Amino acid sequence: MVVASGSRDKTGFFTQGVKLKANMVDMARSVRKLGQEDPRRVVHSLKVGLTLILVSAFYYYYPLYNNFYTIWMVMTVVLVFEFSVGATLGKGFNRGIATLLAGGLAFGAHQLTKNLGRVGEPIVLGLLVFLQASISTFFRFFPKIKASYDYGMLIFIMTFSFISVSGLRDDAIFKLALERLCTVSIGGAACIFVSILVFPVWAGQDLHNLIALNIEKLGNSLEGFGDEYFKRKGGEACKDDKEILEGYKSVLNSKKCEESLANYAAWEPPLGRFPFRHPWKLYLKVGTVARECAYRIEALNGYLNADFQESSEVSNLIQEACTIMSVESGKALKELALAIKTMVQPSSADSHIDKAKSSAENLKSLLKSGIWEDIDLLKVIAGVTVASILIDVVTCTEKIAESIRELASTAQFKSAEPTLSPEKLQSGQMKCVKLSQILNCPHVVIIVSELTPAVFFTK
Amino acid sequence: MVVASGSRDKTGFFTQGVKLKANMVDMARSVRKLGQEDPRRVVHSLKVGLTLILVSAFYYYYPLYNNFYTIWMVMTVVLVFEFSVGATLGKGFNRGIATLLAGGLAFGAHQLTKNLGRVGEPIVLGLLVFLQASISTFFRFFPKIKASYDYGMLIFIMTFSFISVSGLRDDAIFKLALERLCTVSIGGAACIFVSILVFPVWAGQDLHNLIALNIEKLGNSLEGFGDEYFKRKGGEACKDDKEILEGYKSVLNSKKCEESLANYAAWEPPLGRFPFRHPWKLYLKVGTVARECAYRIEALNGYLNADFQESSEVSNLIQEACTIMSVESGKALKELALAIKTMVQPSSADSHIDKAKSSAENLKSLLKSGIWEDIDLLKVIAGVTVASILIDVVTCTEKIAESIRELASTAQFKSAEPTLSPEKLQSGQMKCVKLSQILNCPHVVIIVSELTPAVFFTK
Repeated sequence: MVVASGSRDKTGFFTQGVKLKANMVDMARSVRKLGQEDPRRVVHSLKVGLTLILVSAFYYYYPLYNNFYTIWMVMTVVLVFEFSVGATLGKGFNRGIATLLAGGLAFGAHQLTKNLGRVGEPIVLGLLVFLQASISTFFRFFPKIKASYDYGMLIFIMTFSFISVSGLRDDAIFKLALERLCTVSIGGAACIFVSILVFPVWAGQDLHNLIALNIEKLGNSLEGFGDEYFKRKGGEACKDDKEILEGYKSVLNSKKCEESLANYAAWEPPLGRFPFRHPWKLYLKVGTVARECAYRIEALNGYLNADFQESSEVSNLIQEACTIMSVESGKALKELALAIKTMVQPSSADSHIDKAKSSAENLKSLLKSGIWEDIDLLKVIAGVTVASILIDVVTCTEKIAESIRELASTAQFKSAEPTLSPEKLQSGQMKCVKLSQILNCPHVVIIVSELTPAVFFTK
Repeated sequence: MVVASGSRDKTGFFTQGVKLKANMVDMARSVRKLGQEDPRRVVHSLKVGLTLILVSAFYYYYPLYNNFYTIWMVMTVVLVFEFSVGATLGKGFNRGIATLLAGGLAFGAHQLTKNLGRVGEPIVLGLLVFLQASISTFFRFFPKIKASYDYGMLIFIMTFSFISVSGLRDDAIFKLALERLCTVSIGGAACIFVSILVFPVWAGQDLHNLIALNIEKLGNSLEGFGDEYFKRKGGEACKDDKEILEGYKSVLNSKKCEESLANYAAWEPPLGRFPFRHPWKLYLKVGTVARECAYRIEALNGYLNADFQESSEVSNLIQEACTIMSVESGKALKELALAIKTMVQPSSADSHIDKAKSSAENLKSLLKSGIWEDIDLLKVIAGVTVASILIDVVTCTEKIAESIRELASTAQFKSAEPTLSPEKLQSGQMKCVKLSQILNCPHVVIIVSELTPAVFFTK
């Protein structure tokens, strides 16, 4: 019995050990994945540690034993240091200005009430605190204030409240307000310096890349859709097919992310490719029409697994038109994404949009002709629906192109280089290589080169 | 000249005055609108003011002149008090636990390093602060931690840093850690009490209502779509037509809002209709399929202004099928929304879903029949596309019904009351009144009663 029990204990211990090890391995794997997805996360973490050390060193060597205001320096670093420079600047600015304003107002409130006596003073002060806290809290519900000044409002309420009710004499209050302002400024300045000087992350750059990436994803999905829907793929097609096809899904819910990046970007100083008054709001406009396109692609995606075995001549004609619309819209979107990335005028997308549009027109006239009389409509209904949604997608692509043209002209993108314009490119293949080199996205070559003949065939 | 200049000055002054007044009026109007949209915002603002007064009174009468820890009480209130009880509890819990943990660890770090001498101590302490800040900051990037424990991580970094580098002796550190814990607890407790006792806002209730409202909006849009697309409306139709039709648009981007409400709801105590372990995650599942349906409706919306003047017999048949699918799906969704609101089993929606499905089947067999031979396909292509997307919408509606059924059975909704089940309702009108009473949404009556004959006609 003893032996059995012991062996059971050992087994239990062993199982638990295995489980623990498995958990640890899982944990380590997800930590590595998180870091690999965006190595700037690791850098950001080290930057926060570094800033804290800098501020702590200051604090450790000048501890000011009877004075805990310096705690605010540490607090400021932890609360203000954000991932991007814009977010850090925004929070720092909010904290600084709110502290200054609230400190001044609280000092004023103290001057106003100090002669009201032992009963009047706390009552009037309490009323003032109540009023400012209620009004400021209500203002935090305004969407515009919430987006840019929420943190400032919090700091304003906090600073005003604790300074005005601190029950201190004039000089002590002035000292308190001043010390708080100083420590907050030192902490904020440390954050901003480290944020800008050590591997800075610019929200504006991120927004720019995100919009370009989203449009590229839509393009890839559309190209892949043309391929997948008509089961044209050979064995050598892309490996991460599913991933490319469903790339558009991340565009569906990107609104909040784009909005906060645009907010942060507005705080950032003019920098390199993004001069003063760079039109960040126009990126949001592009993002909105890109999402509209993504909704259409989501509707299309419902037909990927639809019954579609008909292979009559008519179906083939619809298929061909769909393939052209889908692939050409996809290419146009990828050219547009490239135009954003390289900041050139998006003229190279026009030819693809024209091809997609003329294919839509061809399809319409095909439908007008009399070839429908002897076919079973049910068998081409999926095709007709896909074609119809794709005509809608082509319209969306035009809208995206239009919004990017507006962005390009307002932001004064440079005009397209000769090597990138389609007229100078002698073969589709060469263009694909160029695209794939710049986008760092090898699968592009396979899809495009495979479908290029079909495109030229229909011209 | 003098007179002229004077009059110009006066005019300028007058214009400025008018502008200022216009701005003030605009401001007042938007403040009123914000309050009217959700009066709980006003209540919340007053609650924050009240809590701050309570804490300030404590602070004012026991100012502890040489001790500014009490500032933390004010800080805690401003930072922890959130709109809903769940968010407040979550933040309070985060702040409390993080302070306790970090205080303990910082005390341990101090014990560990106090014998290392004047050179070794600050170096090892600095290294520890750097390590914990970097690691904790990195962990904040984990989506799960970001969702529920982000604030706790911040407080942990902050508390550990400033206690461990405070340069104080053992007893002073112990006192510092203890005082911080006490003040944070008092502030947090004040927030939680006021949040729960004075007109509480429950995140769980909000999530429940939001999901029901979103599904109702989808239903209204679909019903309105059946109306609008086929231009059947008379002069007496709903006034806020456009608003109802585009109600689904707010569903497209509701993901973030639903997720944060579900997060907050998990912190809330069991309450009334929502017992312990209420399946909040299932609401998110319903929300996801509702969004999928909204994407389809967005695609449908593109055809609202499409060319559709054909009025042949075939078109009429497609129109009728589309109207039935759209209206019945809409009704089913509204029944489902009502089932969520009243927390009953959603069986009353089944008959509508069945009608929508049988209409889809009818349409398919219609398409199979030979009536297509003498028509111009181009003229019915919009109709065919709409029909096809609507068949997809019916599938989505079924998915929504399924997810709500799962929610209803997991959350043990009560079975449908006899007065609510469609079998017992003698007339559609009576049901509409019931619906509109419960949903507090008068336009429902008009739409449903107008379309009811068409539905019965086709049975």
